[in-house]
Amino acid sequence: MEQLDLNDIGLRARQAGRQLGLLKTGVRNAVLLRLADALEAPNPALLAANEADLADARQSGLAPALLDRLALTPKRIHGMAEGCHDVAALPDPLGQSFDARTLPNGLRLAKRRVPLGVLAVIFESRPNVTAEIGSLCIKTGNAVILRGGKESLRTNTVLVGLIRDALQAHGAPADAVQLITDTDRALVAQLLGMDDIIDLVIPRGGPGLQAMVREYARMPVIYGGIGVCHLYVDASADVAKSVEIVYNAKTQAPSVCNALDTILVHRAALDAFLPRAAARLTASGVTLYCDAPSLALLRAKPSLDQTLIALATAEHYGHEFLSLALSVKVVDGLDEAIAHIARYGTGHSDGILTNDYANANAFLDQVDSAAVYVNASTRFTDGGQFGLGAEVAISTQRMHARGPLGLVELTTYKWIVQGDWHVRP
Amino acid sequence: MEQLDLNDIGLRARQAGRQLGLLKTGVRNAVLLRLADALEAPNPALLAANEADLADARQSGLAPALLDRLALTPKRIHGMAEGCHDVAALPDPLGQSFDARTLPNGLRLAKRRVPLGVLAVIFESRPNVTAEIGSLCIKTGNAVILRGGKESLRTNTVLVGLIRDALQAHGAPADAVQLITDTDRALVAQLLGMDDIIDLVIPRGGPGLQAMVREYARMPVIYGGIGVCHLYVDASADVAKSVEIVYNAKTQAPSVCNALDTILVHRAALDAFLPRAAARLTASGVTLYCDAPSLALLRAKPSLDQTLIALATAEHYGHEFLSLALSVKVVDGLDEAIAHIARYGTGHSDGILTNDYANANAFLDQVDSAAVYVNASTRFTDGGQFGLGAEVAISTQRMHARGPLGLVELTTYKWIVQGDWHVRP
Repeated sequence: MEQLDLNDIGLRARQAGRQLGLLKTGVRNAVLLRLADALEAPNPALLAANEADLADARQSGLAPALLDRLALTPKRIHGMAEGCHDVAALPDPLGQSFDARTLPNGLRLAKRRVPLGVLAVIFESRPNVTAEIGSLCIKTGNAVILRGGKESLRTNTVLVGLIRDALQAHGAPADAVQLITDTDRALVAQLLGMDDIIDLVIPRGGPGLQAMVREYARMPVIYGGIGVCHLYVDASADVAKSVEIVYNAKTQAPSVCNALDTILVHRAALDAFLPRAAARLTASGVTLYCDAPSLALLRAKPSLDQTLIALATAEHYGHEFLSLALSVKVVDGLDEAIAHIARYGTGHSDGILTNDYANANAFLDQVDSAAVYVNASTRFTDGGQFGLGAEVAISTQRMHARGPLGLVELTTYKWIVQGDWHVRP
Repeated sequence: MEQLDLNDIGLRARQAGRQLGLLKTGVRNAVLLRLADALEAPNPALLAANEADLADARQSGLAPALLDRLALTPKRIHGMAEGCHDVAALPDPLGQSFDARTLPNGLRLAKRRVPLGVLAVIFESRPNVTAEIGSLCIKTGNAVILRGGKESLRTNTVLVGLIRDALQAHGAPADAVQLITDTDRALVAQLLGMDDIIDLVIPRGGPGLQAMVREYARMPVIYGGIGVCHLYVDASADVAKSVEIVYNAKTQAPSVCNALDTILVHRAALDAFLPRAAARLTASGVTLYCDAPSLALLRAKPSLDQTLIALATAEHYGHEFLSLALSVKVVDGLDEAIAHIARYGTGHSDGILTNDYANANAFLDQVDSAAVYVNASTRFTDGGQFGLGAEVAISTQRMHARGPLGLVELTTYKWIVQGDWHVRP
């Protein structure tokens, strides 16, 4: 394989991004619709590439769950095309003007939304991420350098070809979307050092990838997707409704970042709430890791499947389960619950279940997570659910944007200053 | 000197910041007003500390300009106190609610402003930065770890003592403002690795400090303050008014980041504009580094002080002069001017001087700097001038905030989600 010149890729991305961001909304949307058509059209090359990736992955013993994520089914291909349609239909953030003001001296100021610049997105095996990120970047006028997992290289190469063809067909610069086709891991470290060219890195992957980015990245990074989520069941909570919310937050999609990990139960609510919640959860196969008082209570209920109830150890708190399991802790009140969340949470999504007005407000004031809830499931933390349309990631960092990142969060602004030959006195 | 435990400082900052951010506006403002009073009161310890710092600095041969920045004159002390009053009078960004919406399912969402968290500010000799940053952090509920230059250590120690006393007097946590009193440079590298505790680093200093931060910082950084600023004099520009704007942008405060560095002159405006501008500039001692055609024109004007006119070399473009000097380049039109700014600018402040409507808009669209101007001096890029009140720095990065950083830019938001026992279908 020939040596990749990452610097050249970066410079071409910068140039292409500059052009893309200046194209009218209609042109960027037309590219997205053409890409949707190209994805829906029969494409033997795409299917063959994906089949070859899958064959290699099977041979190298990739886990079944990862094989599944790698496979491009007709349904997934249709989903990618639909995603392009959805993004095209969203309002264009570019050019939006806000915070406009006229100063006492007559100088007119406004902020105007512009693209962030050149993004680098490092992701793991799912090839639909390629189409998703590609379409979001086309919409927001950002250039992107993609670095997918080696398992999906052939599939991604064909997909990026489709994106580039769609750009070119409308006179837009193909180099706005580029794929690094060399799977040498050293290139990632090199990419993370290119802070003169790359404006933002988005790592979409597990803790290993995030640690590497933390080590090497010299430019801004949007981390996200790791959520240790808590629900605090207050003394005044409606028991039946709380059981439904806890059940929903844990089981509706257990492997995602906004799924529930820990229930904190007020001592006064324990007897009424926990056995009912445990019955509902264990009936769906959820394992409960309980502290001593909650364990004692549940052990005394012979109707519960005791094999799904265990004593919690230190590692069950502050742990993202991503599976049908959660931890339970009894607390003496609101303050202890808030302190637990401050210590063990990841600042993703945490909530209170209560009918007490003052406690609801105190929880909202004092818990500092990207999304803080009263009487709702943590599963709502999602760009689609929040009404933002598309979503790039869910940020758990504090700068630039928190929570679901939609199109607007992929932009920045510049100050537009219009004078009448003003000089500063 | 005892070994500093930076981790302990960080943990205390986090705890104190959490408390500070929950205090009511009135309490945070009362701390600021008490600090203002403490600064205005006769304080022999402060003056003695500053005198001792100055004596050491003189002995170690610190440059006169730096000595001057280090000295606490009565006027500067009064200025610090006034700054506290100004910050107290500004609206409180904390708790502000925005982007509120009710979803079709009845879930109520809003973003609410909260502090960024724990800041680390690394700065050089000016001790008034201590009071300035301290007051901004108190207002915005952020904890701050300050690391000043060793030249001002005694002065900063007394100042931080005043700030901590003011906090304590109102029941606010003193550890919200801490000073690192050990001047070992290795501590800065250690601080920059504490991404588990510090949410944001602001380096206020020159390229050396910025390079060190770029190398070691693992957390978000707001860089700023380096501006290579351009004005493009279009063919249609009003000559007399353009001369005044160029003169103002260069001479009104030549050592600051929004001062003019390069004039780009349309060939058609050259004869009418440049000799008049050169006369006005050289009369105030400004040196002009000219490209060949502009040099030829000015050499032919015997009335100009020819010792202030020289041939530009490559290093005069993309150079921040910070002094009474600028570079001149003749261009064939708007596109060449925009390309020059894209290549040589630092994304700070750049403007066009024109009477052509289409050119003004094309410049605003295509130049991607933090502040883009039509017919005004670049000297307006400033928190005070923009009406933001206080200013922490002028950001030339793209994430989080661009241009002048006021109080709002020292905050982030959390999503508040209020449900009526909502579960996700």
